[in-house]
Amino acid sequence: MDAYLRIEDALEASLQPVCESCPPRLAQALRHAVFAGGSRFRPRLCLAVAEACGDAHPQLAIAAATAIELLHCASLIYDDLPCFDDAAIRRGKPAVHAAFGEELAILAGNALIVRAFELVSELVTSAPLHTGLVLASLARGVGAPHGITAGQAWESEPRIDLRAYHRAKTGALFEAAVVAGAIAGGGDARGWRGLGDHLGEAYQVADDLRDATGQSDMLGKPVGQDAVHRRPSAVDQLGPGGAVNRMQDLINAVIRLIPRCPGRETLVFLVSNWAQSLMPAMPVSRPAMVASAS
Amino acid sequence: MDAYLRIEDALEASLQPVCESCPPRLAQALRHAVFAGGSRFRPRLCLAVAEACGDAHPQLAIAAATAIELLHCASLIYDDLPCFDDAAIRRGKPAVHAAFGEELAILAGNALIVRAFELVSELVTSAPLHTGLVLASLARGVGAPHGITAGQAWESEPRIDLRAYHRAKTGALFEAAVVAGAIAGGGDARGWRGLGDHLGEAYQVADDLRDATGQSDMLGKPVGQDAVHRRPSAVDQLGPGGAVNRMQDLINAVIRLIPRCPGRETLVFLVSNWAQSLMPAMPVSRPAMVASAS
Repeated sequence: MDAYLRIEDALEASLQPVCESCPPRLAQALRHAVFAGGSRFRPRLCLAVAEACGDAHPQLAIAAATAIELLHCASLIYDDLPCFDDAAIRRGKPAVHAAFGEELAILAGNALIVRAFELVSELVTSAPLHTGLVLASLARGVGAPHGITAGQAWESEPRIDLRAYHRAKTGALFEAAVVAGAIAGGGDARGWRGLGDHLGEAYQVADDLRDATGQSDMLGKPVGQDAVHRRPSAVDQLGPGGAVNRMQDLINAVIRLIPRCPGRETLVFLVSNWAQSLMPAMPVSRPAMVASAS
Repeated sequence: MDAYLRIEDALEASLQPVCESCPPRLAQALRHAVFAGGSRFRPRLCLAVAEACGDAHPQLAIAAATAIELLHCASLIYDDLPCFDDAAIRRGKPAVHAAFGEELAILAGNALIVRAFELVSELVTSAPLHTGLVLASLARGVGAPHGITAGQAWESEPRIDLRAYHRAKTGALFEAAVVAGAIAGGGDARGWRGLGDHLGEAYQVADDLRDATGQSDMLGKPVGQDAVHRRPSAVDQLGPGGAVNRMQDLINAVIRLIPRCPGRETLVFLVSNWAQSLMPAMPVSRPAMVASAS
């Protein structure tokens, strides 16, 4: 089966026992958050790395991929909350808090985090060592001090190291996807380290570019948020042209870092397509809104 | 070493790797949330049950107890947020969001949930079956459809079954403490099921009583919240005297449910003391504030 469809099926199956008997509005909020038209790049990356490594534990690979997407969806719910980005729109639809209220948005985020760890934990007895390592990589990707939570928290500090901030806020979950995929595939995760960090930084640079140059209806979310929230942005630091070059350098570095393996071509294709889809379609220049806010 | 001190040490050790390199304000928020003078009843219960069952996996027992307290502290952070109870005071100190802002409060809650699962996951290879079962019991206690998250979400529904609501919002984490303790101790968790639900309901009835009769400075948090938030309350449903009787019945049922085991007396003592500490010190009557709000 196509990887995208396998992931959709696995996400559906992961929510089914949660939604069938939980409070109905929470169930709606969970489905709204998870089935919102995402690209599923992180779980596809996880599965592709697992296959490239020999697919030793396929059940663990799909559980890890599913958990990573659930954690990603949770992080988007929090990102959009009034106290963070205060974004009413996500992927062209109302953000979870806009559709269901802040209480259910926060609870849905919590439920997704717990479900992600629960899902992978279910495989502990069939492959203890590998499942333990996957759980550790998930925790590292989303918790503190290395994961999304810490990355987001750097925004509350008076001084930020841009690279450390991006690495935790965005890179850590890509790194978790790659490392968990390598572990579940039976590979040596050390050979894959660093790849996720580069992907994360590339994603963040692209996101900064789209934020500074995009149009809200193209992106499905509000733009100009970095300037509004005075967040560190690669476009501010490097200029638009410099940011495009940096993005290209990072993708090239990612491709160089992919070890020699049977699935190398598939992975290069996946990463290149993804990078292409992230680049802003518009000419790279700073719109008046951002210029006046900076 | 005394159980209380063992738990304090374990909590300290669990936060140390998180706080030593995470954003400084997040580290402060985490310590504020966890070291706030709680009674640690849930982790003490978990350890007491593990010991009563033979203490087969002491490392797993203390990890489970610590995880349960971290999850409890996370739930208190969320409870106090403006979109839930909007409580500025907790245990006589500023609530986490009041001291550090909503962003860091939410992030601290997330970090505690992730750390709880990470901590227990670290023992997967040494005791795969038991660790897997403990992880499942934690997820059941805090996630959806059975745990705190679902319990809290019932408050957003137009119709609520009071018992199902209390069972998920409060009982589930007590049940997790008991079940995880039994598993880590090497006992048969089935023999302990139901005990946590009764404890949770007793706690909730006591909390409703204290909310309706207490004084803010005695409790270290605002009172009259059930009426303000129009939440279902045992005092509303049974009257103050009926609620006191219900609380006593529940504690008696808990004591009857404790299986015959070497540590039975210790457990009875722990539960009785805890129940005593929860009862409101004031005469049970509804203060004017609540009466006028109802």
